[in-house]
Amino acid sequence: MMQHFLTTESLSLDQLTTILDTAESFYKVDGRHVKKVPLLRGKTIVNLFFEASTRTRTTFELAAKRLSADVLNINVSASATIKGESLLDTLRNIEAMDVDMFIIRHQDSGAAEFISQHVAPGISVINAGDGRHAHPTQAMLDMFTIRRIKKDFTHLKVAIVGDLAHSRVARSQIHALRTLGTEDIRVIAPKTLLPSNVETLGVQAFQNMEDGLNNVDIIIMLRLQKERMQGALLPSEHEYFNLFGLTPERLSLAADDATVMHPGPINRGVEISSEVADGNQSVILEQVSNGIAVRMAIMSLLAGGQS
Amino acid sequence: MMQHFLTTESLSLDQLTTILDTAESFYKVDGRHVKKVPLLRGKTIVNLFFEASTRTRTTFELAAKRLSADVLNINVSASATIKGESLLDTLRNIEAMDVDMFIIRHQDSGAAEFISQHVAPGISVINAGDGRHAHPTQAMLDMFTIRRIKKDFTHLKVAIVGDLAHSRVARSQIHALRTLGTEDIRVIAPKTLLPSNVETLGVQAFQNMEDGLNNVDIIIMLRLQKERMQGALLPSEHEYFNLFGLTPERLSLAADDATVMHPGPINRGVEISSEVADGNQSVILEQVSNGIAVRMAIMSLLAGGQS
Amino acid sequence: MMQHFLTTESLSLDQLTTILDTAESFYKVDGRHVKKVPLLRGKTIVNLFFEASTRTRTTFELAAKRLSADVLNINVSASATIKGESLLDTLRNIEAMDVDMFIIRHQDSGAAEFISQHVAPGISVINAGDGRHAHPTQAMLDMFTIRRIKKDFTHLKVAIVGDLAHSRVARSQIHALRTLGTEDIRVIAPKTLLPSNVETLGVQAFQNMEDGLNNVDIIIMLRLQKERMQGALLPSEHEYFNLFGLTPERLSLAADDATVMHPGPINRGVEISSEVADGNQSVILEQVSNGIAVRMAIMSLLAGGQS
Repeated sequence: MMQHFLTTESLSLDQLTTILDTAESFYKVDGRHVKKVPLLRGKTIVNLFFEASTRTRTTFELAAKRLSADVLNINVSASATIKGESLLDTLRNIEAMDVDMFIIRHQDSGAAEFISQHVAPGISVINAGDGRHAHPTQAMLDMFTIRRIKKDFTHLKVAIVGDLAHSRVARSQIHALRTLGTEDIRVIAPKTLLPSNVETLGVQAFQNMEDGLNNVDIIIMLRLQKERMQGALLPSEHEYFNLFGLTPERLSLAADDATVMHPGPINRGVEISSEVADGNQSVILEQVSNGIAVRMAIMSLLAGGQS
Repeated sequence: MMQHFLTTESLSLDQLTTILDTAESFYKVDGRHVKKVPLLRGKTIVNLFFEASTRTRTTFELAAKRLSADVLNINVSASATIKGESLLDTLRNIEAMDVDMFIIRHQDSGAAEFISQHVAPGISVINAGDGRHAHPTQAMLDMFTIRRIKKDFTHLKVAIVGDLAHSRVARSQIHALRTLGTEDIRVIAPKTLLPSNVETLGVQAFQNMEDGLNNVDIIIMLRLQKERMQGALLPSEHEYFNLFGLTPERLSLAADDATVMHPGPINRGVEISSEVADGNQSVILEQVSNGIAVRMAIMSLLAGGQS
Repeated sequence: MMQHFLTTESLSLDQLTTILDTAESFYKVDGRHVKKVPLLRGKTIVNLFFEASTRTRTTFELAAKRLSADVLNINVSASATIKGESLLDTLRNIEAMDVDMFIIRHQDSGAAEFISQHVAPGISVINAGDGRHAHPTQAMLDMFTIRRIKKDFTHLKVAIVGDLAHSRVARSQIHALRTLGTEDIRVIAPKTLLPSNVETLGVQAFQNMEDGLNNVDIIIMLRLQKERMQGALLPSEHEYFNLFGLTPERLSLAADDATVMHPGPINRGVEISSEVADGNQSVILEQVSNGIAVRMAIMSLLAGGQS
């Protein structure tokens, strides 16, 4: 199918659909629990993380183990840059150990693609988040979650709320949603957190929740990084919550059966109230579960496995 | 059998005996080596440690691997408290990855029980030490060690020596011994390290070794935490050893075939002399070996496995 | 065959040849990829590292997993000395967990041998580098690499270049080469980095590249530790490169089909130019690949396995 999985931007409808269908196949017959399969037995998968993320690393490690692969976790200090020779030497050394796949997390945009251009033939690279650029496995688990609930993408209204300017997740979601046929995609954020050219992505921008949430089927809340508060971009957590936090009142502006999503970890009382996060329209924890199946799907497709 | 394993206090004689019998079954026919079995193949066990302990973590990891389970090690910084929402969110996220069992180590008493009350149905929790409260897997491996040597608990005289006031191990041992039928349980410690209400646990308290060790069958030495020396609780390591250290002379006060135990790691020359620790009445290293089999037993019983 | 693998010094030609032949058997039929085999299923291998080395630890971890063993990684702080009782107590505790093999990395010469003298019968010890003493698995992968290319050792001319005084790798290489029949072994280094008694190892010493490299078949470059620059041993990286760096010009002094080797990680522009390191006479990355097969061979031979 593909050799690498770097971004949702370049993928066709067929490719996205194959990933979603394959992920579905990893659920047990009860439709809720992921089963262990021997698809990648004997393969070696390397979590090569240049940016610490226990959470993401754990989901990839678990997905690889459920596929019966051997997993190596290697944390590389941030001093290795994507330009420096040291990164390439590190890479060459690990791939010489006869490994099959790299999962790359890096603070610089483009790092996973750079690495994919330099690995030996036959080795696959998965982007587990690179700078502000992309986080395509997160986007695919979100698509999987949406399809399980709403069945179809073409008539959906989807709102993405929060720090669009710094979010690699949002960019990957928007590309995937558009390819899957969603036309009404809205982004909602204060002006300082909206990229200036955001409409070129094919979305409609709103600077207040009341207009943006009107009648939407899916609300995707983004995590607000605490460091945004320290710059001039935002006044305070409290004021942000007052203007852009998802409360039961604001949720009622959306469609009656609207679904609330969040890539986690959530900041309670900052971008979302506990009532909504823990409420029955929230699927935040289902997203985590689905993340295992989706990552298994992507890994097995890259490895040429059939499920 | 049980869903969780949190303390020895609440367990019946039948339950304790089932654990000991199951642990016995994990030994190879030579009775000394633990065999690897496929009982938990496909299951995911999470070592969720809020307090660093390479030693305890390692024994659980090995026990899980000997049962063919997949193991995830997750260390959580001490900043997550058992009251804070962040702990529960962390827990919810990991359990959403479709895991089967949590091994919890935490500096706060009650942490494992708190977590057990909040995990999803079907997930088991094992307490690997919580504050000063309990360390029930350590107590069970001690019971297993005693039963292998002495066969019967009902006529035993057992002395537990050392820092009773801060010991989660001792509390768990006393509960287990009493349920298994031991009536003569003695605790020996300086007054500052004896809980004021210790007799309510059904034990007899002594403040000197000469009286307490008289004719006992089992001597369990507790580890003296170095930090007790810095407070007003104890004068010095040297003086502690003079008064409460287990030397060959003091050991001779016990029964001729008395057995010396210690949960490790030992402080040589503080609570125990090297002569005794390495002598032929010591079973300190057998305790470690037995710990693997006992932890395998508890894990497999919680998972509903048959051995 | 052997119980431990501590140094190449004590091994016979037969033993070295058996290791090389066994390593060959772990390659797939394509001769380039290592296959996974169930030889050590149910065995537990412990990476006990007293000195941090992600690189070496990773190769042993991968080799063990390719043999289907369970692997425990334990890092021990440098404060544990080989003399102190704490090291022995740590060792006794881990071996009591019924483990089968220790991989030891330690900053003190003799540490692996010390440990091998104290482990329980039936447990094997592999030296993964001890002080300035030996690094025998690295030497064996180098021998394996040489044999794959040159077939025979007896007529080879081999030059080892760099910090001989501090190199555990070089000592292990020289012992292995001599046992395998190589008579023309040269060491090339500035006087400050040449051990005074180096000729007693059966090698010829040179203090300049032009004389030493003349017509050699194999050039083994050693890594120059940056800390040597801070003492009085060396003037500067730049001057070192000018005098002892391997450039295309110097490489042309060797035989036309000379092979360039380096244990890694390389310092580009210090001991070796990028042109040579990445050139077609370099086998630096093949050495890494071969390291997996050679470590699998040593582990399986110690465990009594047949390949």
